[in-house]
Amino acid sequence: MEFHHAGIATDDAAHLRELFGGLFDAPVAHEERFDGMDVLFLELDDGYFELLEPHEDGAIGRYLDSHGPGIHHLALATDDIESALATADEMGVAAIDKEPRPGAWGHEVAFLHPKSTGGVLIEFVQH
Amino acid sequence: MEFHHAGIATDDAAHLRELFGGLFDAPVAHEERFDGMDVLFLELDDGYFELLEPHEDGAIGRYLDSHGPGIHHLALATDDIESALATADEMGVAAIDKEPRPGAWGHEVAFLHPKSTGGVLIEFVQH
Repeated sequence: MEFHHAGIATDDAAHLRELFGGLFDAPVAHEERFDGMDVLFLELDDGYFELLEPHEDGAIGRYLDSHGPGIHHLALATDDIESALATADEMGVAAIDKEPRPGAWGHEVAFLHPKSTGGVLIEFVQH
Repeated sequence: MEFHHAGIATDDAAHLRELFGGLFDAPVAHEERFDGMDVLFLELDDGYFELLEPHEDGAIGRYLDSHGPGIHHLALATDDIESALATADEMGVAAIDKEPRPGAWGHEVAFLHPKSTGGVLIEFVQH
């Protein structure tokens, strides 16, 4: 599979956009308000950093409250997200999303449970 | 800059190697014992997951003790790590490593301080 992005929980996406843009020469590839969050994809030569700044209660806000800002998840791109989820199920990996659901940027997404994946929150993304 | 890898702190690299290999079709591209750790690079279509299992006291062991296993850092590849560090310094970003130092796989590496980068531990890697 292809690395797609690292999701970063932040309470100041505008600051990180400027900072990471300058440090990594990473322009904004896409931005939208999605699911109560400002979502910005910063483009690297391979893949993206996804900045997530919540403006309503939700998973990212709870993450910020408990962990503070930082790396939230890693996303892998697949052409067949149903097959990726089936493989995970066959391998005994628990899924947060048993079926793909709409994500930001028009993607279909599904998260695996970090208790099954070494504490790493993994997202499958279908382009 | 180019995404290079996500570093993952684990107490069971052998398990994650099998699990991520199967989930992501990610074979081992490189492995070595480095700085008191088992270091394994799993190859994705773009970039790597770097598994870090410590066998001696050190930064990753302390991370596991305080945070548990999970995503530890994000690494960006650059052709000019001195210039990347100079840019960071000019932008007021604190560096853990003011000069590049030898990393695993023969890389030159330098880490920025997460207090300056939104809680995200960033590593510059020069091939």
